[in-house]
Amino acid sequence: MAEYDVVIVGSGILGLSTAYHVKSVHPDADILVIDKLSAAGEGNTARSAAAFRCIFSSRTNYALADSSVEFYRHLQEDLGVDLKLQWLGYLWLLTEKDYGEISAIFRDLALKSDLKYIEYEGKELTRRLCVRIDLKKDEEAQSMGLDDVFGGILIPKAGVINDVSSLVNFYETEFLRLGGKIQYGIEAKSLIAEPRQPLGMPGEPYFWQATRVAGVSTDKGVIKAKKTILAAGAWVSQILDRVGVECYIKPRKRQFFAIPAKSGELQELLYTKGFNPVGCLPFTILPRLRVYIRPFSKEGTYWVGYADDFPRAFKLEEDPQPEKSFYEYGIYQVLTKYFPQFENVRASSAFAGLYEVNSLDGHPVIFEENDLMVVGGASGSGITKADAIGRIAEALYSGKEYACFYGDKKFKVSDLGLKKRYVEPEKLVL
Amino acid sequence: MAEYDVVIVGSGILGLSTAYHVKSVHPDADILVIDKLSAAGEGNTARSAAAFRCIFSSRTNYALADSSVEFYRHLQEDLGVDLKLQWLGYLWLLTEKDYGEISAIFRDLALKSDLKYIEYEGKELTRRLCVRIDLKKDEEAQSMGLDDVFGGILIPKAGVINDVSSLVNFYETEFLRLGGKIQYGIEAKSLIAEPRQPLGMPGEPYFWQATRVAGVSTDKGVIKAKKTILAAGAWVSQILDRVGVECYIKPRKRQFFAIPAKSGELQELLYTKGFNPVGCLPFTILPRLRVYIRPFSKEGTYWVGYADDFPRAFKLEEDPQPEKSFYEYGIYQVLTKYFPQFENVRASSAFAGLYEVNSLDGHPVIFEENDLMVVGGASGSGITKADAIGRIAEALYSGKEYACFYGDKKFKVSDLGLKKRYVEPEKLVL
Repeated sequence: MAEYDVVIVGSGILGLSTAYHVKSVHPDADILVIDKLSAAGEGNTARSAAAFRCIFSSRTNYALADSSVEFYRHLQEDLGVDLKLQWLGYLWLLTEKDYGEISAIFRDLALKSDLKYIEYEGKELTRRLCVRIDLKKDEEAQSMGLDDVFGGILIPKAGVINDVSSLVNFYETEFLRLGGKIQYGIEAKSLIAEPRQPLGMPGEPYFWQATRVAGVSTDKGVIKAKKTILAAGAWVSQILDRVGVECYIKPRKRQFFAIPAKSGELQELLYTKGFNPVGCLPFTILPRLRVYIRPFSKEGTYWVGYADDFPRAFKLEEDPQPEKSFYEYGIYQVLTKYFPQFENVRASSAFAGLYEVNSLDGHPVIFEENDLMVVGGASGSGITKADAIGRIAEALYSGKEYACFYGDKKFKVSDLGLKKRYVEPEKLVL
Repeated sequence: MAEYDVVIVGSGILGLSTAYHVKSVHPDADILVIDKLSAAGEGNTARSAAAFRCIFSSRTNYALADSSVEFYRHLQEDLGVDLKLQWLGYLWLLTEKDYGEISAIFRDLALKSDLKYIEYEGKELTRRLCVRIDLKKDEEAQSMGLDDVFGGILIPKAGVINDVSSLVNFYETEFLRLGGKIQYGIEAKSLIAEPRQPLGMPGEPYFWQATRVAGVSTDKGVIKAKKTILAAGAWVSQILDRVGVECYIKPRKRQFFAIPAKSGELQELLYTKGFNPVGCLPFTILPRLRVYIRPFSKEGTYWVGYADDFPRAFKLEEDPQPEKSFYEYGIYQVLTKYFPQFENVRASSAFAGLYEVNSLDGHPVIFEENDLMVVGGASGSGITKADAIGRIAEALYSGKEYACFYGDKKFKVSDLGLKKRYVEPEKLVL
């Protein structure tokens, strides 16, 4: 049977970025990507907000995001690859307490890097967005625990991708151009464990044998490889459980609801001028609970979403469904308290996907053991960090101590591994 | 509906130790223990080696184990509770490299505590146990990666419980005597999440509501409680996944094989004199791979076992089965290289159970959030540490910063929590 140098499970954004970067550095390596779906990026990559931002509070996340976003900018602006990036910016609406903490983080980061941000007073935001900033007299808002908006912070180097397949296709096309192979419609069922020195006896491997992952068993047969890279997103932990490898990744549902900007007020809000070159509302995050609004300027719609935690189950679902009540009794209630423009407007459509949450610290997980590499745990910011994650995966595959990000920044590969993991807590989850 | 002060899910050794200690300190609390099985300790507590030892390399594990073992000794020797403790000792057979490392650990611990241990040269062990210590000329042993025995270290304050139900019954009886309640044959299906301030609307809790665990939903109906304590061993993570709480506990199979001491050689080995007051082989751990031998002096048998890891699945099974080949091609091959006395002897019976492995660091996990407490992750040393774990759970329930172990040693409760977890790596896994 043919043995590949590398088999990569998953053609989402992380799998393809990994495939591209490994193939770029090892052009002679025989690399196969497989995916159970029929095309690239059709899993949870397609079921994401397709938003990106350059900024996080942890040193690690910031480096991953900023270099990835700069690479996407380079592709679009310098090389003319049409990634459909829209630089809407991210606008955080913040309570007084959060404003103090988060503006301090930004001030500190701006001293150490080229971070740009703009601060807005609450009243200024009301003038521009008709956002309600004073909820003290609203009894219902008080009973819901909603807080006043003290001010806002805008990050210009951030935005959305319309649509996300343009980024996925870039990595796929380049990987194929370099001679990489992709097979769609093949589902990885489990990993093959084989002894390093087979004895040819039935029932191997025995526990006293040194054992490695020798490829994947799929619904279309066995694929053998010198290195197996698992980048299957929300499915990673299920596959790893079968060989008893812990990765600290849990699947959890995310939901989006599309709101058409039919009314004059919603049109006005959507095409708000002055925040970005597009002339559109930024990607906007509401206070404390962090309900977010993701504008689609061309389609004349908004997506609104929320990543709930306890008691939301960790659950792997092949086709997760949005819950009408999650919008009507959840998001809608919060959203309309701040933006009355959304009152009495129903979602015209909705979809759901799965996060692959890293349950240790919310940072990606990139490690190798027994000839198996795991690349995952992007925890909702896979698109924001995909390029850097692919470069770290390449460095790990190549046995380098440091990865080199776009812009030449070095990153210690073991910082995102499991044995010598080193990350700071993230305070800017959204 | 009646609301208990505390409902504890699981009547294994951890659940009952927790129940007893919480009830002791809070005699007026209305505490209910439920278990899906028909009696106490019938799950994986009964499917364990029922062995105990006072020693671990990590400060935390050592404190948990030593104080628990001292408590068991106190019960049996001072209070006359028949726990059926047999002080066989633990005997580690070690390669030269491991001997150097482990004897250094023991030397260090003996300086700081009252730890007693005895060192044996390899030749002395051969004289006493007919153990083969020189495998260099054995090609098969070399191809299996087996190493010579350089020496052995015996810990006298260690042994086995014949049978484990005597310890379980102690906690159960005392808990009931204090007025605690137990209901068997009730299976917890999921946790009930309720808003702290219910609005009486359908579909609560919504994500903007502060939410707590208000009890358990079972196959016999709902049980409400001010505090819910999950001590369901290998089942903990399945229950917690349903409300999206990470506990870093994974279920994994463990297997034991019973070998009757029929031959003269096996009889002689079993009733080896000079290691302990029982006149029996100690609980013995073979080099490197750590296959272990658990003697049953009264029954004239040995149990042999091994805790395999990669590629052994993390898998929750209601009735895990031992695998014949695991003994024949696994344990037997290693065992007979060191102890030829076992050659040509088949297992007369076998059983399997589940570990509840803590995948962070192998230490127990004891934390609280949203009125839910989790007590688990004993990782194979639940009996060894049960008393201390119950006392930590009591301290957490009571809101104390420190637990007080038997012997008056203080232990910081948050050291085994998730937010401020502080444990050293464990080097004496077995």
